[in-house]
Amino acid sequence: MTNIYKFGPHTITAGQIFLKSKHSLGLVNLKPILPGRKLFIYSRGCLDVLVISRRSVPRFLDLSPEEVSDIFQSAQQIGRVVEQEYGGTSLTVACQDGPQAGQTVPHCHVHIIPRRLGDYVDNDDIYEDITRNTNELLTLSEDGVNEPIKKGVDNDERKARSEDDMTAEAARLAWLLGEQ
Amino acid sequence: MTNIYKFGPHTITAGQIFLKSKHSLGLVNLKPILPGRKLFIYSRGCLDVLVISRRSVPRFLDLSPEEVSDIFQSAQQIGRVVEQEYGGTSLTVACQDGPQAGQTVPHCHVHIIPRRLGDYVDNDDIYEDITRNTNELLTLSEDGVNEPIKKGVDNDERKARSEDDMTAEAARLAWLLGEQ
Repeated sequence: MTNIYKFGPHTITAGQIFLKSKHSLGLVNLKPILPGRKLFIYSRGCLDVLVISRRSVPRFLDLSPEEVSDIFQSAQQIGRVVEQEYGGTSLTVACQDGPQAGQTVPHCHVHIIPRRLGDYVDNDDIYEDITRNTNELLTLSEDGVNEPIKKGVDNDERKARSEDDMTAEAARLAWLLGEQ
Repeated sequence: MTNIYKFGPHTITAGQIFLKSKHSLGLVNLKPILPGRKLFIYSRGCLDVLVISRRSVPRFLDLSPEEVSDIFQSAQQIGRVVEQEYGGTSLTVACQDGPQAGQTVPHCHVHIIPRRLGDYVDNDDIYEDITRNTNELLTLSEDGVNEPIKKGVDNDERKARSEDDMTAEAARLAWLLGEQ
């Protein structure tokens, strides 16, 4: 595990990454969304995977046209796999591009979340969790200790997963994507 | 005004379109979001422009890789212009891909909304308006009469704009995009 990647100021490990394309990386989530306001929880793993630009720029608007193509073609590939894997029938694909849009990590990223009937009582409540979760996806400090950032009222309800759990999920998604 | 385009089951006119690329179209909005829960209203025109695929397919997942590139490169071009035009500092870029993600028109489309500090008391409230608005963007019936679909609790608060207003805004955005 010698490869170290950055997501904004945060360090991620190679084990969290399930897709590598020329200009983007697919990442699994440290803190799965828990049931509560939601009517169900996925039986396997978590919602809310991310695709990020390899180049550390804050904004979607900062990407080159080639990077835009790459990150959204990756998002589509990931969307197909996570929708099927989690038994979804739709996808939420969202880029909160800048702090006034709810972005909490200043590194261009796109949320890809499989959806199905009744997953949220109010369909759009998911965006509150997106905003909270982005700040909690992470991450390993330089010495490898989980250091999620605490923010948002629901934090205490959610448990950080172990690195082994994340690595196992990333490995499965990578396999489904033909990456391994 | 002989060109007729379709957005799902709805008919749109050429005057509503401010961008045409190989695989996508940029559209202005029939019913601007009104102030109320929001702290401000843009001085000019409306929020929530759309980029849609020219090919009428319901899902982002249905697009070819080339179409994915085109629609999101168009989204980026549009985002630059509308953010500057409306004095924004961020963008909400969202694709509600399928009915369980809040999609109300079964034709692949991406919302592009300039954001700025304090525009919503709760930043994520904007997604409720996205979901309501998609169903109200439209449109002209075959005989040219505005026929917005009524849905959502806030409908009566919002006024449908005239076709002249939409055409004027589309013309300005087209000019800013170098389309005219």
